[in-house]
Amino acid sequence: MTVWLDGDWLGDGAAVCAADDRGLLLGDGLFETLRFSGGRLLRQAAHEQRLRASCAALDLACPLDRIALAAIVGEMAARAGLRQAAIRLTLSAGSGQRGLARPAMAQPSCLITAAPLPEAPASLSLATVSQRRSPSSIAARHKTLSYIDNAIARREAVRAGAGMALLLDTDGHLSGTDCANLFWMRDGRLFTPALECAVLPGTVRGAIMAEAAVEQGRFTPDELAQADCVFVTNALMGAVAVTGIDGKPAGRAQPLPEAVSALLD
Amino acid sequence: MTVWLDGDWLGDGAAVCAADDRGLLLGDGLFETLRFSGGRLLRQAAHEQRLRASCAALDLACPLDRIALAAIVGEMAARAGLRQAAIRLTLSAGSGQRGLARPAMAQPSCLITAAPLPEAPASLSLATVSQRRSPSSIAARHKTLSYIDNAIARREAVRAGAGMALLLDTDGHLSGTDCANLFWMRDGRLFTPALECAVLPGTVRGAIMAEAAVEQGRFTPDELAQADCVFVTNALMGAVAVTGIDGKPAGRAQPLPEAVSALLD
Repeated sequence: MTVWLDGDWLGDGAAVCAADDRGLLLGDGLFETLRFSGGRLLRQAAHEQRLRASCAALDLACPLDRIALAAIVGEMAARAGLRQAAIRLTLSAGSGQRGLARPAMAQPSCLITAAPLPEAPASLSLATVSQRRSPSSIAARHKTLSYIDNAIARREAVRAGAGMALLLDTDGHLSGTDCANLFWMRDGRLFTPALECAVLPGTVRGAIMAEAAVEQGRFTPDELAQADCVFVTNALMGAVAVTGIDGKPAGRAQPLPEAVSALLD
Repeated sequence: MTVWLDGDWLGDGAAVCAADDRGLLLGDGLFETLRFSGGRLLRQAAHEQRLRASCAALDLACPLDRIALAAIVGEMAARAGLRQAAIRLTLSAGSGQRGLARPAMAQPSCLITAAPLPEAPASLSLATVSQRRSPSSIAARHKTLSYIDNAIARREAVRAGAGMALLLDTDGHLSGTDCANLFWMRDGRLFTPALECAVLPGTVRGAIMAEAAVEQGRFTPDELAQADCVFVTNALMGAVAVTGIDGKPAGRAQPLPEAVSALLD
């Protein structure tokens, strides 16, 4: 793995944080996962906008004010010999004294890594898991280092024979999956859960909503059974059709509309 | 800071985890905070029991099967010259490939540190914060490395002029504070929120319940206004009286009952 940490290139396996790092100890930090392809970062502006907004919400100095992300990633891809890569930017709140309150002098640290871009699956099956997301949770609304609930949801879904977890919010409304936003089509209309349903504002979600008429709202899971097509989106996969939910065919199992695929080219 | 990592004693500021560590990247791990005093770890058995239960819930190999915690902590206190210490055991799921699913070969790593024991406050004020806890969240029910929601709750409480955040669950029931369990007395009866209200099973909470009749249940915040005494508990502080909530006197602002203090000696 090629590793960049606060301006230095590190070797494989190098240790990156101290024993008092708030990212490690408390999940106090943020991350972005970006797709590098064709010599550039896809939807870089949207990722940067989200990271700036989340830094403001967490009261963290944004690293984008002091680093040139595209240049670092370009060099990283060259060093790693990757033409396509999954780039992860990890921002920790940095070293802090013991306790919940972040010390004023804490200096956030920025870690960037590149991995081979995983191939997006042709389709996915989902399993509804027992965990429900609180709409007021910072961990649900931002891409924080406190991601355990998503990892545990994935484990439950895999054990149920599915590829990804479908999560509801605590009011029983559709929220999204453990790592992607949820969309569906019905009678030519496009739907997605509103942000207030504990939804992370995904960059591909934003791209689709900028280009197409999408109805946002609070929806119950039975909406999916009546859908013509269900699909999920994230930065690495783009959009992937969901063919099964809880062991049953999803909607009418129609393929992803070309109109959606075209938005993401 | 004196640092022990998987069998090695490390110097101050030494880096402790790699760029693919799931504890850092995803908050995939657990911690325990223990009080070292009088040459021993207080309520060590209760901490170990909770850690084992949480390891089972997170599907992590428990480090207590391979380390002698008391011996390590005893040597650590001696090295650090501390007669009383706040001990933190941090268990990360270890290095893993990219993605949510934990690889089967991931080896958890165990980090132990000692810090001077902070003096417990004589009393505390609380502020009810906007965030509500989901009872099905792993991060709410276990002491995981995904602790950002607690840190953000604390920040909101401090900005409101209080010392600690009071949190409700998503149904509006009392849950606890950002780092402690909640109790109150009324007419000589002792109450605490039930575990299903997104409550972490604290070791001091357990000690009190083992020794005294405590009524657990789903309670709304107005219960606290009618209380004779409100107090919070955690491993480092023991029990501390709450004298104010949201700018008003808590209950009738009576001191912590001696009967409770006596349980924790």
